[in-house]
Amino acid sequence: MSRRAKRTGSSGKAMSITAETAARPAFEGVERLETPLVVVDAARLKANIARMQAIATDGGVALHPHIKTHKSLAIAGLQRDAGASGVTASHPGEAAVFIRAGFSPVTLAYPLVRPEPVARLLTLAGEHGVRVRFIADSMTGLEALEAGAAKAGQTADVFIKVDVGLHRCGVDPLAETGIALAQRLEASLLTFCGLLSHAGQAYGAGNVDGIRAVAATERRILLDVRERLLRHGIEVPLTSVGSTPSLIANDGFDGIDEIRPGNYVFFDMTAVRLGIVGRESLSLAVSATIISRNRDFYIVDAGSKTLSSDLGAHSTGSGAGFGEAWSAELDRPLSVEKLSEEHGMVARKGSDLEIGQRLLIYPNHACVVVNLAPRLTLLDGGRASPLAIDATRRADASANAP
Amino acid sequence: MSRRAKRTGSSGKAMSITAETAARPAFEGVERLETPLVVVDAARLKANIARMQAIATDGGVALHPHIKTHKSLAIAGLQRDAGASGVTASHPGEAAVFIRAGFSPVTLAYPLVRPEPVARLLTLAGEHGVRVRFIADSMTGLEALEAGAAKAGQTADVFIKVDVGLHRCGVDPLAETGIALAQRLEASLLTFCGLLSHAGQAYGAGNVDGIRAVAATERRILLDVRERLLRHGIEVPLTSVGSTPSLIANDGFDGIDEIRPGNYVFFDMTAVRLGIVGRESLSLAVSATIISRNRDFYIVDAGSKTLSSDLGAHSTGSGAGFGEAWSAELDRPLSVEKLSEEHGMVARKGSDLEIGQRLLIYPNHACVVVNLAPRLTLLDGGRASPLAIDATRRADASANAP
Repeated sequence: MSRRAKRTGSSGKAMSITAETAARPAFEGVERLETPLVVVDAARLKANIARMQAIATDGGVALHPHIKTHKSLAIAGLQRDAGASGVTASHPGEAAVFIRAGFSPVTLAYPLVRPEPVARLLTLAGEHGVRVRFIADSMTGLEALEAGAAKAGQTADVFIKVDVGLHRCGVDPLAETGIALAQRLEASLLTFCGLLSHAGQAYGAGNVDGIRAVAATERRILLDVRERLLRHGIEVPLTSVGSTPSLIANDGFDGIDEIRPGNYVFFDMTAVRLGIVGRESLSLAVSATIISRNRDFYIVDAGSKTLSSDLGAHSTGSGAGFGEAWSAELDRPLSVEKLSEEHGMVARKGSDLEIGQRLLIYPNHACVVVNLAPRLTLLDGGRASPLAIDATRRADASANAP
Repeated sequence: MSRRAKRTGSSGKAMSITAETAARPAFEGVERLETPLVVVDAARLKANIARMQAIATDGGVALHPHIKTHKSLAIAGLQRDAGASGVTASHPGEAAVFIRAGFSPVTLAYPLVRPEPVARLLTLAGEHGVRVRFIADSMTGLEALEAGAAKAGQTADVFIKVDVGLHRCGVDPLAETGIALAQRLEASLLTFCGLLSHAGQAYGAGNVDGIRAVAATERRILLDVRERLLRHGIEVPLTSVGSTPSLIANDGFDGIDEIRPGNYVFFDMTAVRLGIVGRESLSLAVSATIISRNRDFYIVDAGSKTLSSDLGAHSTGSGAGFGEAWSAELDRPLSVEKLSEEHGMVARKGSDLEIGQRLLIYPNHACVVVNLAPRLTLLDGGRASPLAIDATRRADASANAP
């Protein structure tokens, strides 16, 4: 099978060869490898890294990429080489792995509410000459940071997290909590870094116009809170915003200092459905083998323990299946319609592939696919090489890290 | 906080204290441990193991429990001690871990279609004095088994997988494929073990009556295929059926030789919604901490990377959220309504818990929660001890196993 294999697909409007070729996952070299396997196309990965760095550089903001997407020291190294200013993590164990590897600063964009993990991360960061930045959105969290810093005999850098519409973590921008927290921070031994937000609701915005509106709201809310703090005599050193969709579909970064996107290194079908990229930007796919077939379905060896059951980020499911499956033999993708734990059911839609043939599947949500995988395989011009997933929960547990 | 803490819940009909106490996850000892954590109640686990063993023993069938649920050598040891006759796995890497530990036979209830993993498993099994049993539902699969066995210089035990209604893997019971495969098996160096099925559609049957109908159909189909093979002069040594729901809600095992349930060691909210058990049988829960809160939600430190996005087995989602959260402070459970990767959003429904408080969450699907966890923690009369998850993909990858 090659990219030039004859097209046996019979139904559906044929795509132009150029668009179709660009939309396909990179097949080259993957046929020889066992499945299921999570493959990353090196050229697309590097293009994605360069693209977001250009957005940051052109916009005059620092890029602190979120490593929860790849959990890989090698990919974070590529991001750093391209110009990233630090990394962002969403779990203390992830942060610990990147601190040990010397990435600095590490922003833990996740509120800790007990002193112990704070103290452990600060001690570890001190040992490795790394700066770690925390977030807080409650007095309980701030007290945990104070107690943790005291226990570690250090100060700690702290952002106040602001809810800009996801209604997950973050202080209500209209309430007085943010001001109270900032005043407490100013009076403490902790260092106030500024305001941080994550407009994750961009994943539910439906289209690029909707995402632009979310990004504009995020920026406006942060600048409003900054203004209010200034009126209380509190300077805001930094403003930090996140979410891949709201940064791809941005309308400028006036007043913003740094950005923290994660998903952009790989993108996935959620990004395609949102309209922020085409399939030719998807750098991650799952290689699977057809192990059985019946009238309606090909059964492949990638189920929910490989693809995950995610329909999209932040429970923003599209109802469009669990991934898009491509074959070198077909001129259109097929849909992964059901998942068991180790089996995926791909709708045949009139096609006729054999047991043993390969499919490459673009998943809905790349971040959770990486979290499930034992390792990644980098495909670079036909050569395959292993790409370690370093910051796993299991690595964390075995190292007895925070 | 203890089980006897005052009930501050204000709305909803109060459950009787007995039912409510039985339905709660075991809190004892968990408060001291870090979160998120997957905890297993030892007493409930052992009761579940004893219950399924009694179903098998009373029904005169052998129990070959599916270890994809727990991936734990220690729990499989409890199942063996209780009377299990072997184990079932759904991934070659899982099978390899249990072969190395000496469990026999290991049934790989998953069709392999390439010779290499077959040869590797047979060689490994030979080294460890273990019997391994395969399944096939296609000539491609049978050829892979023959080639793999030849490569390993061994014979191989093979079941023919029959589709009894899940329409995933398995030969169509009305087609001639099963007869052709059995004839080929008889003529080969492979050993024909019999017929094997998995009525996974029981998870979508809605209630106990529906499940009974699924189980009856499964049994009838297998016995019909056996009858047809006999008319072709082919003896069927064994019939093997699976799925926890169809075994809990069974109407007898006439003509069946062995059963392969998995989920029953833990059960989960899917089993509760199906009506096959009450919450007092749920032996697995996720311990989480409230890290933030807003008007509508408690935000906890267990997201899709801990609870999974599964709504139920085999894409049989209920739409009832991602888990049921219990607090020692409330007299009713709350619903996990949305998931980010590291955050769960639990609907407050008028309750007033503080940041830092713990919730115990019964997940929708225990098997995928274990697959995500770095380890399990066994709670036994207030004592906590680690419970290794041995057969992970990562363990498999690092051991370079099949």
